[in-house]
Amino acid sequence: MADCIFCKIIDGEIPSIKVYEDEHVYAFMDIMPLSKGHTLLIPKQHREFVYDLTEQEAGTLFAAAPKIASALKETFQPVGMNLLNNNGAKAGQSVFHFHLHFIPRYDETDGFGAKWITKEKQYSSEKIQELAEQVKQTLATQS
Amino acid sequence: MADCIFCKIIDGEIPSIKVYEDEHVYAFMDIMPLSKGHTLLIPKQHREFVYDLTEQEAGTLFAAAPKIASALKETFQPVGMNLLNNNGAKAGQSVFHFHLHFIPRYDETDGFGAKWITKEKQYSSEKIQELAEQVKQTLATQS
Ligand SMILES: [Zn+2]
Ligand SMILES: [Zn+2]
Repeated sequence: MADCIFCKIIDGEIPSIKVYEDEHVYAFMDIMPLSKGHTLLIPKQHREFVYDLTEQEAGTLFAAAPKIASALKETFQPVGMNLLNNNGAKAGQSVFHFHLHFIPRYDETDGFGAKWITKEKQYSSEKIQELAEQVKQTLATQS
Repeated sequence: MADCIFCKIIDGEIPSIKVYEDEHVYAFMDIMPLSKGHTLLIPKQHREFVYDLTEQEAGTLFAAAPKIASALKETFQPVGMNLLNNNGAKAGQSVFHFHLHFIPRYDETDGFGAKWITKEKQYSSEKIQELAEQVKQTLATQS
């Protein structure tokens, strides 16, 4: 896409620090890393959100995830790793070309961490069951 | 695996609120949700971490992601969505059977949010290039 920075990276118009590439995907280092080894995996085809990927595109993309994650783990020996995909500005997306973050974790100096406040008091089992029924109905109407 | 709560959910030994299932994957509502519609997608085969998935297992798993994400989006109309996979206790993993969180985002009452502190001052372009070379060498030695 014309004004997409990640499309330009794939095309070589904008330089990037590549770690992996195949026919369908491209992986490169985040130049604003949250921790040592922070890497991005993207589809070569321009897609904005996870909603826009076909099954095949999604499958091909994530097929590369274990080897990238394993290489980061073996190289940098982190204590953990987060894989994160943000959809929408309010969910933290800043470039609107689908990307999956690989964020190796080391210690309290990591630039990434999660706020994690469970809402089980607001959501009874019955309430959740009701929500699941709605999702299943939506799934049933998808082509 | 004998003592794995998610394997027991797949086997039906422990009840769950299912939203989707196929031959290889199972998706169900998180009963400690961070927000409305918080869903987990897991492989039926027990795997602990992203490192342990084969390419094919990873591909098959994520092939289901767009339809689940789209159904959650259509059903609950969130303003965004985070897909998150935690590997290792220090990265927030509490059940050691690979799982991908789908966390719809609405507003400041969401139970999920990300600490996001970039470290570009610590990582020059040259430094990142050096790190990328190390990762590429590791990738080259992977079978
Ligand atoms: Zn693009
Ligand atoms: Zn298991």
